[in-house]
Amino acid sequence: MGFDPNADVFRAHEGGKLTIRSTMPLVDRASLSLAYTPGVAEVSSAIASDESLARRYTWRSRLVAVVSDGTAVLGLGNIGPAAALPVMEGKAALFSEFAGLNAVPIVLSTTDPDEIIETVVRIAPSFGGINLEDISAPRCFEVERRLRELLDIPVFHDDQHGTAIVVLAALRNAATVTGRTLGQLRVVVSGAGAAGVACTKILLAAGIGDIAVADSKGIVHKARTDLTPVKDELARITNHSALTGSLEDALAGADVFLGVSAGHVPEPAVAGMAADAIIFALANPDPEVDPAVAHRHAAIVATGRSDYPNQINNVLAFPGVFAGAFDAGATAITENMKLAAARAIGDVVADALAPDYIVPTPFDARVAPAVAAAVAQQAREDGVTLDD
Amino acid sequence: MGFDPNADVFRAHEGGKLTIRSTMPLVDRASLSLAYTPGVAEVSSAIASDESLARRYTWRSRLVAVVSDGTAVLGLGNIGPAAALPVMEGKAALFSEFAGLNAVPIVLSTTDPDEIIETVVRIAPSFGGINLEDISAPRCFEVERRLRELLDIPVFHDDQHGTAIVVLAALRNAATVTGRTLGQLRVVVSGAGAAGVACTKILLAAGIGDIAVADSKGIVHKARTDLTPVKDELARITNHSALTGSLEDALAGADVFLGVSAGHVPEPAVAGMAADAIIFALANPDPEVDPAVAHRHAAIVATGRSDYPNQINNVLAFPGVFAGAFDAGATAITENMKLAAARAIGDVVADALAPDYIVPTPFDARVAPAVAAAVAQQAREDGVTLDD
Repeated sequence: MGFDPNADVFRAHEGGKLTIRSTMPLVDRASLSLAYTPGVAEVSSAIASDESLARRYTWRSRLVAVVSDGTAVLGLGNIGPAAALPVMEGKAALFSEFAGLNAVPIVLSTTDPDEIIETVVRIAPSFGGINLEDISAPRCFEVERRLRELLDIPVFHDDQHGTAIVVLAALRNAATVTGRTLGQLRVVVSGAGAAGVACTKILLAAGIGDIAVADSKGIVHKARTDLTPVKDELARITNHSALTGSLEDALAGADVFLGVSAGHVPEPAVAGMAADAIIFALANPDPEVDPAVAHRHAAIVATGRSDYPNQINNVLAFPGVFAGAFDAGATAITENMKLAAARAIGDVVADALAPDYIVPTPFDARVAPAVAAAVAQQAREDGVTLDD
Repeated sequence: MGFDPNADVFRAHEGGKLTIRSTMPLVDRASLSLAYTPGVAEVSSAIASDESLARRYTWRSRLVAVVSDGTAVLGLGNIGPAAALPVMEGKAALFSEFAGLNAVPIVLSTTDPDEIIETVVRIAPSFGGINLEDISAPRCFEVERRLRELLDIPVFHDDQHGTAIVVLAALRNAATVTGRTLGQLRVVVSGAGAAGVACTKILLAAGIGDIAVADSKGIVHKARTDLTPVKDELARITNHSALTGSLEDALAGADVFLGVSAGHVPEPAVAGMAADAIIFALANPDPEVDPAVAHRHAAIVATGRSDYPNQINNVLAFPGVFAGAFDAGATAITENMKLAAARAIGDVVADALAPDYIVPTPFDARVAPAVAAAVAQQAREDGVTLDD
C-alpha cells in the first residue's frame, strides 16, 4: 500500500474513471441548432408546460446520483469527499457497465444530516434517482428516511439495501441447498450498522422469525440502556428468545451466522453452531471467520471476497434495482421491490444450486436484466409508478 | 412551436443528450479489483493523505458543473429546473464536443441566492469548475461573486463572461477593420442585465473609455434613484459625458451599438450614429436592430444568430476558458484570463479580417485550443495555479 505513481492501480486511475459524451453529433450549424439553441427552446417550453415530459426528453430519467459524504468509505472510515471520489466514480462506472445507466458521483463537503438532506433535495431535479453511499451509521438511517419522504424519485442506500438484497438471495438458496426453509432458520447477525440493520429487516420481512443481533457490546436486547434509536428498534423487532450476553452466546446452536461487522469470531464459537450451519462472513478484506475455519464447521460459506466462491457482492443488486425502477417510472423503491430483487437474483442460479454456488457471480449477465424486470413488475404491482 | 413528439427536435432529444461511460473496462475480476474494490482503496487512501492527488486520480480535474436555477433560460425566462435541463444538457454536450471536457448539468429546486451558493459549495468537492448558467440578474452577480470568494476552483457565469469575451474579441477586430483602436470608440450598451454589465466591464478593462449603458428606463446615470447596486456601480464607472435621456439619445453620434437586451431600436436612432458605425445586435432570435436595417447605416454588423455572418456565440469562449484553466490547475478565472481569451479568439481570424468576418465561426477547430493555451498561460502569469 501507499502512493506509488507507477503501480498499476494508480496508473489505472489516472484522470479518473468516467467520461461524459454527447449522444448527438454537434458538427455543424444544423446539429447545433437542433441540440442547442434555437431548437432546444421548444423542448424546454414543452417541459415548462408539462413537467412529466422531462422523463422522456432529458437524461435524468436514467440518471443516478451516487451521493456520499465520505464518512464510511470501504474499510477506510471517514476520509472525506475528495478521497471518497474514486470509490464513487467506480460505483458510477458499475451502474454504466452493468445496467447501461448513467451515474454521477456527488461528494459533499458537509457531514451534517440536515445539510446532506437539504443539499440532495435542492439538486434532485437534476437526477432520476439517488444512490446513497458510504454514509456512516446511524446518520445514514435518518438521511435515507427523510429523503424518501421528501423526494418522489427512488432513494436507495446501497450499503444497507444492496447488501440486504444479496444476503437474502444467498440465504434463501443456502436454505434450499441444506433442505430447509427460511422460516426454519435461527440467525445471528454480527453488526448493527447500516448493513446489519437492513439485513435484519429484510430477513424478517422474508419470513425469518428468530434473529439475534449483536453489536460490539454483545447481543442487542430490550434491557440494554446504551442503544441508539435504531438499535432500540432492533431490540423490539428481534431476539424473541430474549437472549443476553455475547455474540458467542448467541451463536450456540444457531443455524446462520451473518457477519457484517469488522470483528473476529473465534473458532469455538463457530464450532457450537447447529448442524448444516451457514456462515456468511462478509467483512472485507478480512472475513469475521476465516473461510478455512468456517468450512470445518459449516455446510455453506459465503464471503465478500472475489477470490472465494459465493461472493456476496452488491453489484448483483443495485444496477438492476435502479434499472427496474427507471423502466417502470417508479417514484420510490418499496420493501416489496427489494424482496423481488432478492428473489430474482437467487432464481438466476436456481437450477444449478450447490454449496459453493448459492449466488450468481458478479459478471453473470443474466442478473441485471432479471432484477430489473422483477423490480419493474413489483413497482407496478405496488402502484408506485408514473405510468399508472 | 408546441409539443409534437414526431417533430425532429423532439425525436432528437428523446432520452436526453448525454451519456456517462467508464473509461476502464469492467469485464472480469481483475479489472473490477483494479477499478473498484479492493484496488480503489489504495487510491482513496493516497488522496486522504494528500488531497492534491485528487487532481491526478479523479475525473473532477476536468469536470465542469453546469449549474442553473432555471430562472433566465434562453428567451423563455423563469421556467424552472426541469425545463432548464435540456438546455444545460446541451451546454454540457458543447463542453465535451468543443474541448473534450466532462460536464454535468445541475439544476436546482431553489432560486434563493443564499441557498444556491450554499448548495454549490456543498457539492463543489465533486467538480473541478463551476459554470453558472441562466440565473437571472441581479441575483447572478451576488451568486458568482460569493462563490468566487468561497471556492478555490474556477467559477464562471457564462451569460456574463462568455458573452463579454466574445464581444470584446469581435469588437477589437471590428475596430481594426474600420481603421480604429478600441480607445477611439464611443460605445452604447443596451441592456444592464448579466451580459450588459459584464460586457461593459470587459470593454472598460480593454481600454474603451467612453461607454453609456441604457436599461429599459433609459441611460444609466448617477442622478437616477431607481438603480440596483449593480447599476449604481455602472453609473459610477461609465457615462463620463454624463448623458441623460433615452437609448436613442445616447446613440446620436456613437460609434458602437451593443444590444444585449430584448428591446427594439428604431431605424432613425441607428441612422444617427457616427460614420463607420458598428452594430452588435445580439438579442435572439430577434436582434434589436434588424440586420438589413443595420447594414444600411453601419460598416459592420454582428448578431447572435447562426444564419448571419459574424455570429457572437459563447461557444467560442467557454470550452477553451475551462480547458485552459484546468490545464494550468487554475484556482480561479481572473480578469486577465478573460482578456487573454478574447485576444486569442480574435487572433484566430486576424489574417483574414473582413467586415463580415470579425470572429471565427463556432465550428472553427482552431479556437478552443488557442483559447485554452492563452488562458492557461495567463493563469500562470497571474499566479493562480496549483502548479506553482
